[in-house]
This record gives sequence, C-alpha cells and structure tokens, in this order.
Amino acid sequence: MVTFEKIHDAARVLDGIVRHTELIPSTMIDGCRLYLKPENLQYTGSFKLRGAAYKIATLSDEEKARGVVACSAGNHAQGVARSAQRFGIKSVICMPDTAPLMKIDATKSYGAEVCLVPGVYDDAHDKAVELQHEQGYTFVHPFDDDNIIAGQGTIGIEIMSQLQDADAIVCAIGGGGLISGVAIAAKYINPKVKIYGVQAERAASMFTAVKSGRIVRLPSVNTFADGIAVKEAGENTYRYVSQYVDDVVTVSDDEIACAILAMIEKHKIVAEGAGAAPVAAVMCGRIPCEGKKVVCVVSGGNIDVGILSKVIERGLVGAGRTHTVRIDLPDRPGQLNKVSSIIAECGGNILQVHHDRGTNGHDIAGCGLQIKMETRNFDQIERIDTSLRDAGYLITDTK
Amino acid sequence: MVTFEKIHDAARVLDGIVRHTELIPSTMIDGCRLYLKPENLQYTGSFKLRGAAYKIATLSDEEKARGVVACSAGNHAQGVARSAQRFGIKSVICMPDTAPLMKIDATKSYGAEVCLVPGVYDDAHDKAVELQHEQGYTFVHPFDDDNIIAGQGTIGIEIMSQLQDADAIVCAIGGGGLISGVAIAAKYINPKVKIYGVQAERAASMFTAVKSGRIVRLPSVNTFADGIAVKEAGENTYRYVSQYVDDVVTVSDDEIACAILAMIEKHKIVAEGAGAAPVAAVMCGRIPCEGKKVVCVVSGGNIDVGILSKVIERGLVGAGRTHTVRIDLPDRPGQLNKVSSIIAECGGNILQVHHDRGTNGHDIAGCGLQIKMETRNFDQIERIDTSLRDAGYLITDTK
Repeated sequence: MVTFEKIHDAARVLDGIVRHTELIPSTMIDGCRLYLKPENLQYTGSFKLRGAAYKIATLSDEEKARGVVACSAGNHAQGVARSAQRFGIKSVICMPDTAPLMKIDATKSYGAEVCLVPGVYDDAHDKAVELQHEQGYTFVHPFDDDNIIAGQGTIGIEIMSQLQDADAIVCAIGGGGLISGVAIAAKYINPKVKIYGVQAERAASMFTAVKSGRIVRLPSVNTFADGIAVKEAGENTYRYVSQYVDDVVTVSDDEIACAILAMIEKHKIVAEGAGAAPVAAVMCGRIPCEGKKVVCVVSGGNIDVGILSKVIERGLVGAGRTHTVRIDLPDRPGQLNKVSSIIAECGGNILQVHHDRGTNGHDIAGCGLQIKMETRNFDQIERIDTSLRDAGYLITDTK
Repeated sequence: MVTFEKIHDAARVLDGIVRHTELIPSTMIDGCRLYLKPENLQYTGSFKLRGAAYKIATLSDEEKARGVVACSAGNHAQGVARSAQRFGIKSVICMPDTAPLMKIDATKSYGAEVCLVPGVYDDAHDKAVELQHEQGYTFVHPFDDDNIIAGQGTIGIEIMSQLQDADAIVCAIGGGGLISGVAIAAKYINPKVKIYGVQAERAASMFTAVKSGRIVRLPSVNTFADGIAVKEAGENTYRYVSQYVDDVVTVSDDEIACAILAMIEKHKIVAEGAGAAPVAAVMCGRIPCEGKKVVCVVSGGNIDVGILSKVIERGLVGAGRTHTVRIDLPDRPGQLNKVSSIIAECGGNILQVHHDRGTNGHDIAGCGLQIKMETRNFDQIERIDTSLRDAGYLITDTK
C-alpha cells in the first residue's frame, strides 16, 4: 500500500541522490498555462532513477549484500545500475541481445553487470527471474512494486511545491508506476488537482484496462515510444490508476513526433517518445486545459539519435512544415520552371527535387516530378496544391 | 568602460527578467570535472536576452519613448524583441529576407516589427542604421556596447556563485560581447580563474585579431554555427579580450557537430553550433583541463531542425558511430551475402544498402554496393574494413 507518508519518506531518502528538476513555463499551447517537469534532465535521463534508488535504499543489509537483478532494455536498466552503484551494491541487468549498443554501454558505464539474453524482452525477464532464484538477488520490478511507486511519487510532491495552484498533472503510462505515485502524492496535497494519463494508441494496455474494467494482456504493442510499450498493466498500478486517475487518453506516434519537435524548437530539450506523450495529448486537445495551469511530466529523454532524426522529419511533415508532392508532367521544356514558379509565388521554399523521365507509373510520353518543400503551415500547403491543380498539373501523391 | 559594478547592477536589473540557469555537472569528458551553463534553456533560447534587456532597461525615458532598432537574423533579434516587449517599448528588427521563416515568426511573436531587407546581413545592417537616423530609434548593437557586455557578464557572476572554485570558464566568441562580460565579472570575483574563448575555424576573426595583434576583417566566414559567424571583432570587445582572456582556440564544424550530438545523448539538451563550440574545444583537447573544474557556457540552442538532422548524421560519422563503405563487387550470386556476413561477424549493424548493377564507374561486369552500418567506434570500423579487404573486396570509398 503506497501512502503519502511513504512517498514523503522517499523524498527524504532521495534528497541529494536525484535532481529536483525545475518546472519550465511554456507558451507552446494557446489558452493553457503549461509547465514542463523535465525529468529528461534527471540523472540517467529519466525519472526511473527515483523508484530504483528508493527501492534499493529500503533493502535490508542482507539483501543489499546479495545484490539486485533487473530486466530492461531502457531507462529502468540505467536507473537500477546507477542506484546500485550509489549504494555500493552489485547489480545484474538482463537485456535482450537485440538492445541497442548505446543502451548496453550506458548501463555498463554505471558499473552494472549486463547479461545479454538471446531473444526479446520476455526472454530477458525469464532469465532475470532465474537469476533471482539461483543467486538470491532481489528482483527490482520496473513498476508494480510499492517502493518503486513511492520513489516515482516524489515527482508529485515536487510539482505541488513548485506550483501550489496546479490544476492538472499529465503523465505518460507504461506499466503505471509513475502516474500511480504522482497521483497519490498530488491528490494528498490537493484533492482537487486532476491527474490524466496518456498512452500510445498502439500500446494502450492501461487505457483498455480502465475502459473495460479489467486488466487485459495485449497480443502486441507497436510504438516508437519504447518506454511505454507495455503489454499489460500491473495489478497494483491498475488499482491505483482506477482509484486516483481522472482519465486516460491515447495519442498516435505522429502526434508524439510533433510534440518532440515542438519541445526541441521551443525549449531546446530532447524528449523520448514516452516523455513527449503528455505534451502531445495537450497539443491535440485530448485533455481539458483551457485557462488551466497544467503540468506535463516529461518523463525521459533517452531516444536513439538515429530515431530522433526520423522523428524530426515526421514531426515537420505532421506540423505542415514540409510538404512533398508528386506530379505527372508532360515531357516538354519549361515544365519544371512553371511548377517551381507556382511554388515560389505561394511562398514555398524548395528543398529537394527528383525529376525522373520514363520510369514506371507515368505516361510513356510524360515524366514524374517529386518536389519536397519547406512550408509554414497547412493553409499554405493547401494554397500550393490548389494553385498547382488550377494550373492543370496532376498531383498523384502528397505527404 | 565595463566595470564589475556595472555588471553587478545588470544582475540586479535582470533579476526576474532572465532565468538563472542551473549548472549541469557532466561526465562527458574523462579526467575533467565539466559543468555546463545551459543558456540554451534561457528564455528566447539564448544568452542574448541578457544584454538586450539591460541595454533597454538603461535607456532614458525619452529614448524608450522613441523605440529601438536592431539588425539580426538570429538570437539578438529575439533578445531585443522580447526585452522591448517586456519594457513596453517599440522595436524594429531588420532581417535579411533570406532569414528562415521560423526565425522571422519567432521574432514577430515577441511583438517586434520585422523589416525584411532584400540581400544579406550587411544590407539589413545598413537599413537599421538608416532607420536609426530617420526615426530616432536607439540602435541596439549585438555586441560592441558596454551595456550589452555588462548584461552578458551577469553569466559570469552566476557561474562564480554556483561554483566558487571553478578553475576555468570557456565561452564561444562571435563578436566577443559574451566573453568580455563573463571575463570581467569572473576575474573580478576570482583573479585566478582562466577564461578561454572558442571560435569556428572558418570564422576566426577574434582568433586572428588576438594572434596578429590587430583587428582584421575576414573576407568571408563559413560555418553552420551562425551565431558566431562574425567577420570582424568589435573595438571594445577586442580590447577586453586582449586584456582578460587567457587564450583563444578554434574548432572545426565537424567537431562542433560531435559536441552537439554528445549533449543530446548525455544531457538531453539541444545546443546550436555556437553553443556547442566550447564543449567541442574541451572534447578535442584544445583547452588544458586535466583534473580541473571547467564550466562551458552553452550560449544558445536556436538551431534549425533541418540542420539539426544533418548535424546528427555528421556527428555519428565523426564519432565512429556510423560507417559507409562503397565496394566494387563481381556480379555473381552470393556476393551481398558474403559481404554482409563479414560485417555481421565484426559486430556492425547494417542500416542501409544500395546495390546497383551496371551504372557508371564500375566494371561493365561488376556492380556497385554501398552499405551504411551502425558501429561502436573507429577501432571496429578499422576491423570491418580490414576484414573486407582481406576477403578480397575492393573498397572504393568510405565515409
């Protein structure tokens, strides 16, 4: 049972071990007084350090002497490894052998022993449980554990002391540890504060559980927000979410990409998919926030930089900031010139041109033109497409 | 004449107007106790707000009533616009009409009147001077002005109060306003602290001035770090840098790209080129910092996201994290399979393959293969290339 007293104790224990991340006021969303709680700027790049450190701090001396085991390909791995290092105890982290090199190296850099397990997350999990029983390690669960939840809940205490009159707090939900702790803490301090949960629409395990009234195991999850790609809500966290959380909503991967892009541009901070989901939900109007003081917990920033490049591209498309058209052109001189002058007149800035004569899919006497341009918004894109069509050009595809 | 008293007065005036950005301790560089002063997290995304706000605060009531004019395509524009808005006075910002849409929109969003001038920066500058004389506006210089320098110097006071025993402070130099103010403030508080300046090697105007003993106007500058692409040091700032700065060094654009990437990965913050230059200098060993407490001022984060994507790509190449090889293959079955198995044995992770038969530049009976892979470091790249050559493959190009 997670009580406010336990979370308060966690805050005391974690003082000096975690950063008290400062709220960042944001004008990103009109009509809403938005604040970001940037746990991506937390040590290890995510809030997971809090729960892991409190869990380890509360182990008995005997348990500490035996060490801990965890299974994760991401933020929990680094949180446990750094916490174990901080308390001078042994940690073994089981990771699927498909985990990115950088995450393996980051976990090792905190002194953990990394056990690479052939297969996927579930195989790594089975190996961790095996080691727990064989070696007597304490298993550190990523979310469904009262001390983990209490550690994450310290974020709720910090928010309510940094912004006493917050109207709402928005958290991403993977397993539900973060939002459970935050909700218990924040509602103890001010029972009127609303707590909203956000999931990726193709990994909506808690959303499905809450809406259907029982825990459901999803056959698969599919989102680039790997930090919240969890197939099944926890038993404890499902109970806490049902009791304390006002609503759970979902967002698409493209909406998350737009939120990541917006935070880079407006606040110069990098969020991972899970970390950007709350901002995406507010940006897309899924959460009532007109005139309200709303705090979005940006839970982490550990995103693969290769994926970040792609996310920026998708975010630009999703925000109407780049636009690509494919046009079938008659193969006569001057056509590219005409098209480009129409785009210029509408204020589009051409970034890339593929002009390709006689390949498949076009008239034998025609040619295909693909133009990628920088645009300002969807209104401008509409003007450009309309002008091209009015001039008689056949647009075969846009994105 | 910029005195410590003036900078101290600026700190008093700016209290409540600028963020006191917190130092971020960093383990990015072995052997050095590095701290980042993240002015990219400052309002407007850069330190330029400080100087502009203090300059405007110190105007007479009559000058305030007439308004201000400035010329900039970047951070100074936003700093002046936001400061003018804060003090309720009119601002006109002259920008070259080639400035990115987003920068124009950001400047307008702070209530400035944007005057788009056909041409380049120098044309915008001439227009601003013309408006100054015609309309009686006060011209807000981007760096060569004592009150601007004093405003930037408040960063020096903050650093020395946040880390009393700092050994060195590293700042990028464009015109030299930031480093002049920081050096005057920091050395007043502790004369032993070292101050180092960093320039882009293809925009090394202050470096050239300091090394040759006189101000030199560079014929051209060429760097993606547009915040420090300044052709000529200021008269005042040259004098201050000569007097207070211990050394000026240069870094390449590729080195800056690696530093941007490192800050994204380790600290989840986005720096623009100028903002990353000090970290690049420390990472590349240009500055003596073994065992020292070194503060790098990350001066801003306003980087175009399209450029950010490219910087990430370049940074990955520069850090040995991606590798591309072009190979001439005999056109026989099984060749792609052999090459890919060699790469897999060496632990490379293939990201992209172009396999292209019978185009230019290859034997008529051969075909060209280009493979892009994820790698861990340069040692691994060396092993991969050597294994491919040992197996008889002709590598025609790598990057």
